[in-house]
Amino acid sequence: MTVYLDHAASTPLRPEAREAWLAASEVVGNASSIHGSGQRSRRVLEDARERLAAVLDCDPIEIVLTSGGTESANLALKGLWWAREEGRDAVILPDGEHHATLDAVEWLRSHEGARIVPVGLDAVGRIPSEAFAAALPGAALATALIANNEVGTINDARALADHATAAGVALHLDAVAAFGHVPVSFRQLRGASVGAAGLAALAVSAHKIGGPVGVGALVVSRHARLSALMHGGGQQRGLRSGTQDVAGAAAFAAAAELAVAELELERARLTALREQLVRGILSSIPETELLGDPVDRIPGNAHVLFPRAAGETLLFLLDQAGIAVSTGSACQAGVPEPSHVVLALGRTDAEARQVLRITLGRTSTEADVDALLAAMPAAVERARAASALA
Amino acid sequence: MTVYLDHAASTPLRPEAREAWLAASEVVGNASSIHGSGQRSRRVLEDARERLAAVLDCDPIEIVLTSGGTESANLALKGLWWAREEGRDAVILPDGEHHATLDAVEWLRSHEGARIVPVGLDAVGRIPSEAFAAALPGAALATALIANNEVGTINDARALADHATAAGVALHLDAVAAFGHVPVSFRQLRGASVGAAGLAALAVSAHKIGGPVGVGALVVSRHARLSALMHGGGQQRGLRSGTQDVAGAAAFAAAAELAVAELELERARLTALREQLVRGILSSIPETELLGDPVDRIPGNAHVLFPRAAGETLLFLLDQAGIAVSTGSACQAGVPEPSHVVLALGRTDAEARQVLRITLGRTSTEADVDALLAAMPAAVERARAASALA
Repeated sequence: MTVYLDHAASTPLRPEAREAWLAASEVVGNASSIHGSGQRSRRVLEDARERLAAVLDCDPIEIVLTSGGTESANLALKGLWWAREEGRDAVILPDGEHHATLDAVEWLRSHEGARIVPVGLDAVGRIPSEAFAAALPGAALATALIANNEVGTINDARALADHATAAGVALHLDAVAAFGHVPVSFRQLRGASVGAAGLAALAVSAHKIGGPVGVGALVVSRHARLSALMHGGGQQRGLRSGTQDVAGAAAFAAAAELAVAELELERARLTALREQLVRGILSSIPETELLGDPVDRIPGNAHVLFPRAAGETLLFLLDQAGIAVSTGSACQAGVPEPSHVVLALGRTDAEARQVLRITLGRTSTEADVDALLAAMPAAVERARAASALA
Repeated sequence: MTVYLDHAASTPLRPEAREAWLAASEVVGNASSIHGSGQRSRRVLEDARERLAAVLDCDPIEIVLTSGGTESANLALKGLWWAREEGRDAVILPDGEHHATLDAVEWLRSHEGARIVPVGLDAVGRIPSEAFAAALPGAALATALIANNEVGTINDARALADHATAAGVALHLDAVAAFGHVPVSFRQLRGASVGAAGLAALAVSAHKIGGPVGVGALVVSRHARLSALMHGGGQQRGLRSGTQDVAGAAAFAAAAELAVAELELERARLTALREQLVRGILSSIPETELLGDPVDRIPGNAHVLFPRAAGETLLFLLDQAGIAVSTGSACQAGVPEPSHVVLALGRTDAEARQVLRITLGRTSTEADVDALLAAMPAAVERARAASALA
């Protein structure tokens, strides 16, 4: 039996999402077809879109269904870039963003001539609102995480969006790690914006909240100026062509409704479990340190620095003990590089290789925490011995 | 009970694909994670990739999983364009291509400065190899359908690919409508090509062959020069970042294996059913005409011209009789425009609005054909009466 503590990489499919997928997969017909079968399919799709809009607090027409977080971020960043005002070439990019954002913006730089304007993080991984605001004037677009997917720190996204509105700059918010774990309201985050500036697009993913992999959405303000990434049949306001995945949408909606309904209870439960886990590690293993904001973080996220122990080795040893954790964003796992997020906290290259991200989720129990705490001391001791030899 | 004769728009999910999806959806973990859970997920994914490679006759590493045919075509066309040789600006675009291709190429023109070089079709909707070959020299890239998704005509894709190889031009083949219905071998279509020229990429989709919606692939030759459409975690040779949809891949592989295993038997069965259907219409309804190649076409595809009857009206009347058909590509349905494919056959604008695409599939029976033939005469009579009034 694996003790699965890598819920931020992917969390188990909820039974209700599986059921919704199964039921919708029985509906035959392309949702763009105008015959009765197509229209039945369309109704299931639009029902899912409405339910997603309700939990994200936006209009149904603002929900653009995608294949996941990476597509959503790429659509937002490239789409806003291609539709930018002439003469604007700066992309405001905080340090420590997810690789889907980093690499899409890097492509905008190397291929499209964008000028990257970085914004440094503070010591807990938060984007300083003032520095962000100072970078904005005249920019083509800006991007920011609502919550950092590695160290878990929650940004003041509303303040960042307000600054973007005031500066007349379109903003993309990456809510992939935040949605379902902390409250996310598109309407509230838009604030006083009534046009293309301010919050323009917000990315979410299904498999981070118990929906299926391969499904996500970009909430695109009806006032945003955005170009498409994929062209074709003109589905979804022409912003995302392609036959719409009705079963995926239905499963995503089911998972999202549950995640949001359970949010407060789960937040309390997971915060308590996480604090127990962190206390257990810090008290039993010398020199360890919790990274990220100790309080204002994703409830299930524990991100711990283990000085003198390679994260990769720790991950391997815990895996042998039947415990799954991560050294950082799963998307980069397998490549033993220092975490760019930890570096952005002002830590050394060595420290950025000595971290574990331990993430609790819906199925996590006290027994999981106990199992981790039981296995950890020996694992750290062996990892430190191995590092000392190397 | 609907008589569903729109299998080209979307065909019912195969029970075996549903089972494969369900089984894979129980495997917890991101396939990019390096712990045991991630590796179990990865094994299911790579098994699916190997099985897809086997039925498409390519190397597993050449399978790039996508969210469907539209993404595959966009990745191929934009990816080949961005990686083109400097100084080349022509895109060879036959008439009558699918909208995913048309609109992606139109974006390359309007946004990226591509020069579109059209190639006319012959009267049955086939791309003339000689005209295609004559257009190729010096082009940035070329694209072609293996089989036309509306009128069903099968192209001599091997000849087109050989011409591209000889001309030193990279070719994208859209196999979405063909795969699973006519033999498609990537290796054979590559022919003598040993480099970046010739067949570079081939697009397929799962939901056209009994797999789930939202899943597809682009076969990308290991020798192709192609840029990514989505950037991020660097999955799939960096050509398609994003958490990989393991369950979707497993379901696609299950559907693809069955479709290819049954191909010859289904081809014979569906050809007989289709001929019965076409004979029935042509013999009972005056002035009707089969469009596309009468023999060398997708087995289940019947595409019929009903002079003096609006296709939209026919579709509506048949729908009321419980029969689902299409006026053309479902991706454009809902927009009552003349079919660009029928226009490309040299037909008039009026004729391009008087067609129905009737497509049989795995679940189609003689009873379905009988039901259509029984309903057709009255529907055509009423549609013609309505058109005469208008």
